[in-house]
Amino acid sequence: MLKRLGAEFIGTFWLVLGGCGSAVLAAKFGGDGNPLGIGLLGVALAFGLTVLTGAYAFGHISGGHFNPAVSVGLWAGGRFPAKDLLPYGVAQVLGAVFAGWILFQIASGTAGFAIDSNAAGAFATNGFGEHSPGGYAIAAAFLCEVVMTAMFLIIIMGATHSRAPAGFAPIAIGLGLTLIHLISIPVTNTSVNPARSTGVALIVGGAPLSQLWLFWLAPILGGLLGGVIYKWLGPERPAITGDL
Amino acid sequence: MLKRLGAEFIGTFWLVLGGCGSAVLAAKFGGDGNPLGIGLLGVALAFGLTVLTGAYAFGHISGGHFNPAVSVGLWAGGRFPAKDLLPYGVAQVLGAVFAGWILFQIASGTAGFAIDSNAAGAFATNGFGEHSPGGYAIAAAFLCEVVMTAMFLIIIMGATHSRAPAGFAPIAIGLGLTLIHLISIPVTNTSVNPARSTGVALIVGGAPLSQLWLFWLAPILGGLLGGVIYKWLGPERPAITGDL
Amino acid sequence: MLKRLGAEFIGTFWLVLGGCGSAVLAAKFGGDGNPLGIGLLGVALAFGLTVLTGAYAFGHISGGHFNPAVSVGLWAGGRFPAKDLLPYGVAQVLGAVFAGWILFQIASGTAGFAIDSNAAGAFATNGFGEHSPGGYAIAAAFLCEVVMTAMFLIIIMGATHSRAPAGFAPIAIGLGLTLIHLISIPVTNTSVNPARSTGVALIVGGAPLSQLWLFWLAPILGGLLGGVIYKWLGPERPAITGDL
Amino acid sequence: MLKRLGAEFIGTFWLVLGGCGSAVLAAKFGGDGNPLGIGLLGVALAFGLTVLTGAYAFGHISGGHFNPAVSVGLWAGGRFPAKDLLPYGVAQVLGAVFAGWILFQIASGTAGFAIDSNAAGAFATNGFGEHSPGGYAIAAAFLCEVVMTAMFLIIIMGATHSRAPAGFAPIAIGLGLTLIHLISIPVTNTSVNPARSTGVALIVGGAPLSQLWLFWLAPILGGLLGGVIYKWLGPERPAITGDL
Repeated sequence: MLKRLGAEFIGTFWLVLGGCGSAVLAAKFGGDGNPLGIGLLGVALAFGLTVLTGAYAFGHISGGHFNPAVSVGLWAGGRFPAKDLLPYGVAQVLGAVFAGWILFQIASGTAGFAIDSNAAGAFATNGFGEHSPGGYAIAAAFLCEVVMTAMFLIIIMGATHSRAPAGFAPIAIGLGLTLIHLISIPVTNTSVNPARSTGVALIVGGAPLSQLWLFWLAPILGGLLGGVIYKWLGPERPAITGDL
Repeated sequence: MLKRLGAEFIGTFWLVLGGCGSAVLAAKFGGDGNPLGIGLLGVALAFGLTVLTGAYAFGHISGGHFNPAVSVGLWAGGRFPAKDLLPYGVAQVLGAVFAGWILFQIASGTAGFAIDSNAAGAFATNGFGEHSPGGYAIAAAFLCEVVMTAMFLIIIMGATHSRAPAGFAPIAIGLGLTLIHLISIPVTNTSVNPARSTGVALIVGGAPLSQLWLFWLAPILGGLLGGVIYKWLGPERPAITGDL
Repeated sequence: MLKRLGAEFIGTFWLVLGGCGSAVLAAKFGGDGNPLGIGLLGVALAFGLTVLTGAYAFGHISGGHFNPAVSVGLWAGGRFPAKDLLPYGVAQVLGAVFAGWILFQIASGTAGFAIDSNAAGAFATNGFGEHSPGGYAIAAAFLCEVVMTAMFLIIIMGATHSRAPAGFAPIAIGLGLTLIHLISIPVTNTSVNPARSTGVALIVGGAPLSQLWLFWLAPILGGLLGGVIYKWLGPERPAITGDL
Repeated sequence: MLKRLGAEFIGTFWLVLGGCGSAVLAAKFGGDGNPLGIGLLGVALAFGLTVLTGAYAFGHISGGHFNPAVSVGLWAGGRFPAKDLLPYGVAQVLGAVFAGWILFQIASGTAGFAIDSNAAGAFATNGFGEHSPGGYAIAAAFLCEVVMTAMFLIIIMGATHSRAPAGFAPIAIGLGLTLIHLISIPVTNTSVNPARSTGVALIVGGAPLSQLWLFWLAPILGGLLGGVIYKWLGPERPAITGDL
């Protein structure tokens, strides 16, 4: 169990360091309007690749969740035992928090670095209303996070099913997270992962911290919804529990 | 059969929500000329990833068509029974329409959101002539949709053939749709999928609705053409019907 | 044999229509300086995806060469019989020429379309000196095409070797072509494929046609070099001839 | 052994020619601020694809390290014999140096080409402090290189483990290198590979050469760290030594 928790810790660390790190360090490289920066497309790719690489590296150890909403959704879909939810969640949040701290150490190493906790998406945090990158209201933000997380779980449940081609799940799941970011960064800066939201909100404080409840509630609701939908849709033969 | 139709419904929902959603929400993020937005490249990637992820999640349930032109083309190629064409088509269109509605709920959650049904490509709709993103005339638009859909079916028929390496078809098909968008968004905003065109045209009305006939006719002609060409080209041993 | 030549014809058609088509139609969409266009990155991805998709669709029929320099290089590497070089080459060039013609029909469907045969890279043609996109002299252009084609053949020979993991070759080869374009579009607009260069040079005439000799000579030299190098490097157990 | 060293030589040559080549030739194509250029996203993709293609081509010959820090890390993880470290390292550095020289021959073929050894990241060199692309201080640069290389080794160790799905390792490892570049180009221009840093520093001289020590020390420390961490994390059954 300790090794499984270690894998979830490092995997979630990598998700937050890579996804949020690319956003903080490289999205606007060269200044606003400079096409050298990787933009939203690059950030979307980075988030997806953290999961693709983490799932190939750790999938055979811990199942490669890296996300409390995924663990909860897999439980709802009958693929993960309830008793492991809490330890997995703790390891995931700790990994995310450690990533936020390491990212701060790197990002603050250049002159002029500052975090304005009132700016939408500061330090890659998630938000709604005036803290949404595109100014989306709370209802749109909530709906978007629920639908995106539900679809994420459906992809995970389907791609890891025993009838799906073996070995490809990390590609489908990782690039699925890229797709989710391509759609929804403007709406909420894209969470679908309470640990990821927590890891950077704790660094910034202020608005991202006071809005953090939505990025626990909506992804977990979406995860439950996705798990239940696929359970009904999927053929009978189940995959091995928790296995990528 | 109900589960197969459910899979086609959700898969087409995801194709329209993800592909059109990325175009509506993220393509021009930050305003015209801002390189933060994902641009045509990001939209092309998003469309392809909806199919890549959907095919890994649902391929073993419904075959993962998500597109009436694909179902028709696979029938022409001897891979899909005629009696399933109508129910598949209905499920696909309903999924696309539901996606258009959900996308509208999210997109309208920000101040200043408005749809100008006369603007080319408004709300990710398809069009020709003055409603083509690049102002392409009807003949070029028709030719482009026929050729692109024909090639899409050839890729699908070939990559799912029993002699092709197993398990890779969703990658070839999904990235094939990305490629088709990289070429043809300027011409028609890229349909190759009547359900996708219908799902957003019904939200916008106006020109996109009055031009919708072309995005049923040309993709279905192209699908028939591609199915027949590959049937002649392919080696004798067929793949299992409808299986990805 | 007729089906194999048909596969090479359609595959090379797709390579030129998709690769050159994305460059002509979408690279600068919205006008110079508009980040909506797919740019060199999008064109590089498109070229690679034509080969990735074509190889999954046709690899089990013809081997999926789509390029005379590849056929020659595979012959030099002991993987392709000399007697098939001429028919493969003819099918490849015909497919490329047909693609150039279809692309012209689509591209000319918008007002203000014109080809300036003196502009570097017009209609996605290849060139050197003042016809190189970045103004690279003939020696640099020649060296670049030789090295890039040699590395392309080494990737092809290695990824299709019987000891390489089965089924992944189209991914390695297709994304290898993407990589080659990411490096060398500024130098020669990237050929590494005499058929591709011929297909668009015949449409444009002028300088691209008078410089076409280099885009036969350098890729074929590079192909021979790559085939011979890998033959020495590779382990003894050969792959099945011409099989992807 | 000679063939294994030849594979490491060519693979590292390809890594430096492709990764650094795309940065030097194509990143800013069309001039500063022109979105036609491939930008940091394109360079990140190019670096990753050199490893993805090289690993499919050469993995079954040499293991596909192409990087002294990878060889050292695999030794620390119990996957590579100490006696092969020196010959592998020499082959890797020689391949990188040859790539730097070939790249210079191509790049210098256009008028107005010049290298300003004081400009941060000139000729794709790595640096810190005033020679970091984003002006990151030495401590941030060192931390970033250690963490990125450690995660790279963890991905390599995990994706090549006998329990990980077979054949996918080059995808995970190559796209892992892309991800590392998406995060860290602004910090150090991204090394994680002493051979890559050496190959271009020798061409430029000056500051890149005097700062080269950090790009040997930090990646090797990170490689050792990653190898040791995964050795503790991983399940008992080991992969075959040095095999991709």
